[in-house]
Amino acid sequence: MSEGSFSRVGIIGVGLIGGSLALAIKKKYKGCRIIGYGLDEKRLEKAKESKVIDEHTTSFSDFAETDLIVFATPINAFEKLGRQLVNHIREDTIVIDVGSVKAKVVKEMEQIFSSRGRFVGTHPIAGSEKTGFENAKAELFENARVVVTPTERTDKVALMKICNLWQSLGATVDSMSPEEHDRIYGLVSHLPHLLSFCLVNTVSSVDRGLIKYAGSGFRDTTRIGKSSPELWRDILIANREVILEHLERFISQLELVKDLILNQKATELYNYIKNSKELRETLDS
Amino acid sequence: MSEGSFSRVGIIGVGLIGGSLALAIKKKYKGCRIIGYGLDEKRLEKAKESKVIDEHTTSFSDFAETDLIVFATPINAFEKLGRQLVNHIREDTIVIDVGSVKAKVVKEMEQIFSSRGRFVGTHPIAGSEKTGFENAKAELFENARVVVTPTERTDKVALMKICNLWQSLGATVDSMSPEEHDRIYGLVSHLPHLLSFCLVNTVSSVDRGLIKYAGSGFRDTTRIGKSSPELWRDILIANREVILEHLERFISQLELVKDLILNQKATELYNYIKNSKELRETLDS
Repeated sequence: MSEGSFSRVGIIGVGLIGGSLALAIKKKYKGCRIIGYGLDEKRLEKAKESKVIDEHTTSFSDFAETDLIVFATPINAFEKLGRQLVNHIREDTIVIDVGSVKAKVVKEMEQIFSSRGRFVGTHPIAGSEKTGFENAKAELFENARVVVTPTERTDKVALMKICNLWQSLGATVDSMSPEEHDRIYGLVSHLPHLLSFCLVNTVSSVDRGLIKYAGSGFRDTTRIGKSSPELWRDILIANREVILEHLERFISQLELVKDLILNQKATELYNYIKNSKELRETLDS
Repeated sequence: MSEGSFSRVGIIGVGLIGGSLALAIKKKYKGCRIIGYGLDEKRLEKAKESKVIDEHTTSFSDFAETDLIVFATPINAFEKLGRQLVNHIREDTIVIDVGSVKAKVVKEMEQIFSSRGRFVGTHPIAGSEKTGFENAKAELFENARVVVTPTERTDKVALMKICNLWQSLGATVDSMSPEEHDRIYGLVSHLPHLLSFCLVNTVSSVDRGLIKYAGSGFRDTTRIGKSSPELWRDILIANREVILEHLERFISQLELVKDLILNQKATELYNYIKNSKELRETLDS
């Protein structure tokens, strides 16, 4: 993106990701104005006081002159907000989202923004269990991976501008179909979150008091169990078909290892753990 | 422990925990000599060169004058080594282990050291996925929890000395029965390790190449998947009855959440995640 090609950016949902993107754009593109949209005016005023955004509004009529709009709320709010927004924007305004599920979202958003706005689906792999603009930081996307999910309907110029934007903020951009995205992140992100929730709730089902005995292993394994319930409820339901398939695969692994333990198959159990260890270690190299 | 009440300490298995305990004792108790026992003389020589231990041996006859002996190998080696060791030590030599499973180990060791040696089972909750004396550090037990698992057969003076030793190294000591220990750590440590191995192997079963898409959530959730296969094979088999019970509880949670996702029970799913989040957050307060 050449500098200044976005001069006025609207952020819908000024939380961790929306707030960080606001800060990153302001830092990189001097003079670009960021308008935050949300339902809670007090929170928006605080975000403005913290200089995360420049202006705030609870009305989409203030988005008329924006050239980029970012959907950064939990994904289930996108459709309703999109329908309210669409008639307020220019035909060539670029609209992106930063949601963790793409097939459902891209389909809905492409339909809503079919005549006005140029929609591009994106997913920065840069979240955390932390929430709120108070945890936002301009550097969140540096060295992060951002997946863009173009389809046949995606405007090529808008796509190029958005790839350039994310790259200019320090991210590496991958391009794949929305379905491929959901299949991959259903496995390496949604499934681990689900397991983390279930592990903590297993302790809860035995005796909540036992949590105090948890060491660093349990803490790390369940860190993502602290993520936003609203966000993850939406993700788990939106990508449910893929996630339930991966969950069946995971349960098959549990059944396999259960047999190894029950029948004390020491060598096979050793190899099972070793295979896991070797694959996991490739992430550190 | 009054200073100097241990003047010669034998460490069987100079790895992360054995090496760290050697360093911690040497730092706290000046003049105490540490003798490392192992099967690999080259490794022991390196540990001596690194000043983790003062001497090394591959023969238990050199343990005749020790007043404390620590079993710090994978737990499956304890029984054989114990039988080889027992006739070389004094009647009042204190023997401890640092294994992650207690019921099976304590039973075996109490039998072996019934006439010579005073056995006390201990478990410092201070491991890591790292292994080897190269990663050992004297501070490993500071602010850590150490569980001691006395039984009716435990010598009271030896127990007190061992509690004092761990406390003097900065640890908080909890006392419980071996069975209670295994029930609790089967839940908050062994089960999470098992899930971590299974999660990485689920990715492996789909497509090993997909691991590259893993973000920080997956990395944290599977960090303990890098643990020693030998160590964890032994732990999973030694505590198999408890672990398989906890695993059934975990699978019940998976079935429960599967129903919530499949039938899009949004409110119940939200509450399920919220319950997990709230309990997990108590660990950070």
